[in-house]
Amino acid sequence: MKRFLPTTLKTLWEKPSPGTIVDVHGWVRSLRKSKNVCFAMVSDGTCQQPIQVVTTPEQAQSLSYGASVKIQGKLEVSQKAALGKQQYELLAQKIDLYGTVNNDYPIQKKNLTTEFLRQHPHLRVRTAKQSDVFRLRSDTLEGLRSFLTKNDFIETNPPLLTSSDCEGAGEVFLVAPYPKKGNSTDSSEISNVDDQNSSFFGKPTFLTVSTQLHLEALALGMARVYTITPAFRAENSHTSRHLAEFWMLEVELAFIETMDTLTGVVERLIKHLIQYLKQKGYHRDHWNHLMNEWHRISYTEAIDILKNSGKAALDPPAWGSDLSSEHERYLTDVYFRGPVFVTDYPTAIKPFYMKPSSKDTVAAMDLLVPQVGELVGGSLRKDIIAPEEVPKGLEWYSETLQQANTPHGGFGLGIERLLAFLEGDVTNVRETIPFPRSSGSIFA
Amino acid sequence: MKRFLPTTLKTLWEKPSPGTIVDVHGWVRSLRKSKNVCFAMVSDGTCQQPIQVVTTPEQAQSLSYGASVKIQGKLEVSQKAALGKQQYELLAQKIDLYGTVNNDYPIQKKNLTTEFLRQHPHLRVRTAKQSDVFRLRSDTLEGLRSFLTKNDFIETNPPLLTSSDCEGAGEVFLVAPYPKKGNSTDSSEISNVDDQNSSFFGKPTFLTVSTQLHLEALALGMARVYTITPAFRAENSHTSRHLAEFWMLEVELAFIETMDTLTGVVERLIKHLIQYLKQKGYHRDHWNHLMNEWHRISYTEAIDILKNSGKAALDPPAWGSDLSSEHERYLTDVYFRGPVFVTDYPTAIKPFYMKPSSKDTVAAMDLLVPQVGELVGGSLRKDIIAPEEVPKGLEWYSETLQQANTPHGGFGLGIERLLAFLEGDVTNVRETIPFPRSSGSIFA
Repeated sequence: MKRFLPTTLKTLWEKPSPGTIVDVHGWVRSLRKSKNVCFAMVSDGTCQQPIQVVTTPEQAQSLSYGASVKIQGKLEVSQKAALGKQQYELLAQKIDLYGTVNNDYPIQKKNLTTEFLRQHPHLRVRTAKQSDVFRLRSDTLEGLRSFLTKNDFIETNPPLLTSSDCEGAGEVFLVAPYPKKGNSTDSSEISNVDDQNSSFFGKPTFLTVSTQLHLEALALGMARVYTITPAFRAENSHTSRHLAEFWMLEVELAFIETMDTLTGVVERLIKHLIQYLKQKGYHRDHWNHLMNEWHRISYTEAIDILKNSGKAALDPPAWGSDLSSEHERYLTDVYFRGPVFVTDYPTAIKPFYMKPSSKDTVAAMDLLVPQVGELVGGSLRKDIIAPEEVPKGLEWYSETLQQANTPHGGFGLGIERLLAFLEGDVTNVRETIPFPRSSGSIFA
Repeated sequence: MKRFLPTTLKTLWEKPSPGTIVDVHGWVRSLRKSKNVCFAMVSDGTCQQPIQVVTTPEQAQSLSYGASVKIQGKLEVSQKAALGKQQYELLAQKIDLYGTVNNDYPIQKKNLTTEFLRQHPHLRVRTAKQSDVFRLRSDTLEGLRSFLTKNDFIETNPPLLTSSDCEGAGEVFLVAPYPKKGNSTDSSEISNVDDQNSSFFGKPTFLTVSTQLHLEALALGMARVYTITPAFRAENSHTSRHLAEFWMLEVELAFIETMDTLTGVVERLIKHLIQYLKQKGYHRDHWNHLMNEWHRISYTEAIDILKNSGKAALDPPAWGSDLSSEHERYLTDVYFRGPVFVTDYPTAIKPFYMKPSSKDTVAAMDLLVPQVGELVGGSLRKDIIAPEEVPKGLEWYSETLQQANTPHGGFGLGIERLLAFLEGDVTNVRETIPFPRSSGSIFA
């Protein structure tokens, strides 16, 4: 197949053969012309490293910043290799121009802010920084899967259209067939959505906020399952950590009986991922101290730490209330200076499906990490639930647990938050997903 | 980690160590009791092969069909190994019962029809046949990705919430935030969905029918991209090949210029997948003859073949109309007896983004396969499109192509149809996805 499709820069850099003639396809990322020679950096986006193309001024006439080109040339060891600069360069023999950019091309070679680029999501992938993040996203998904596959987890696809609200408290999106009359998607044609919704599926149907309950049913037949899936929250929030459409790794395991098993899986998963990314050539300074053992405290211990913190935690901590972002931040960034699992939350603030761990607490766990806050949430699930204890519409879920009840548990991990955590300097999850969706705006 | 989580049957069968004591967790799939001894087949769903557990009648008292159990025992070579039956069996020492099934347990040990099981999607994963299909699904996703990763494709996640209708002709679902007043999801509380929709995102928003246009934008910065993504069609169809929610592999490649390149990628992808599955131990008789070179014909040739077929094709074929299911079936099942690429369709019946291949045709391709029909659809895309040539709302797409226009193309492959094709004897795509969604019914 490498013979079949053009060679990418990624493949070229894996085994560079100086002296050979190669075809490079890509986009001109920078251009330096002088009287006798011209240097163009060309990237195809398949890897971080562009290729330096050396041309004569005559050849360079067709080249311009941003253009899409095909260049045939001879790969040579660069004269600057000894200086630790680019090892190889391409001595251009033939240049084919596909297309140039217009005067209004927003991706200029200067410092573009992330806010500016976010308004051009269809073009920002052409910047080195943004394509770096998206390649990390790709390798991260692969690294997560490699751990799960090695440990006998089966990948599956629970539904996104659902008639039940997993969390019981989320703000959901309603879904309705849209009776189209013309070719346009004009909102004035939207009519009678309520009736449409119920009549299509036979009951009100929503976009999932988490596939957990369906995933549990699958774990109770295949022992270990996971999905990497979109999920949706109709929250009107504008924080740097929330999206209306986001991706989650969701994992469920049958036959696990302790919280240590569950947190152990999460810790090993993320440590495996970091090792995996290092082997792929990624490096971030803050990854090193993540390889120590992570802290584990109970919610009650967390409240005590926060109460004794002095003024670091802005909101007064109180047993029975959710931890605020400031609380999480104090625990991870100040007190532990690293990831911490918080377990055994008050029953009253957690969903119905969590297994009790004491009279007043459930076997829930959150993994909090520096800067990002909650990265993973999970719990041991109740082995069995009576039909009258589940919310309306979840009779099937009760039946699943009633039939051959089995200890099990699982967790969800937000992919965009994971990437923000891995990058360290990505301060907004909107930079980690190609076309972010949140309340107020859809660009492209 | 293998020390950390309980050993699965999958791992046990990889390197069985007769004479060792092992813990097996699983569900009782069959039970045979006699006066002196009891045999139970126990499966944990991680692989096809269950384990035969040998117990005394006393030990067996806690065992019943369907129950969830933990059994500690000694792994021994079975006395029936010489007969070609199960190689190993577990001599039970200690049995822990987690849970039994109720009298109304629908998964009984008898021939259950797929239609019956479809009404119990939350429990059907506990049958051997259905969990087989879901494991094939998992390995199929892995096999597709292994080909793409090897060939420098970057995995990405274009949005599912979109303000544009890719195909321009699909029946789409509208999405609106659902103003929740209580804990129930009662349809009487749905109000004012039109206003809600527009006000949340600032414009009418739909579930994607294909992420292609966004994926193209990403290919024009990273050269080769793919996504395995849910997509949605609000079609009121009840065929065995349609779902309202389905998964697709979508692939886009920059710098490809010919249809042969595009069909070549598809053919190699699926052949690689079959080899991959064979290495994983899967086998289906009909896979062998798929390894021959696949046929390629133009739409015009297809019409000629159909016209000359006599009465085999039920509808009269006419140049300019779409091929019907009967037409596709004749080409794959009767005429070619195998997969066939049909290329160069009439411009008038294809979407605006396809590249012309002649005055009246576009460089579109469909891969038709026996029994299933259209498995893959794709095309070379127009390198450049003027703003006035795109549907309203797709100005960003036009801008993407205008800036450094680049030859490119891609395709979409339906995961559920692929699985039906691979299985051969799965006649309805609803058996290939855990919780099928289609018009008229949502079970669980």
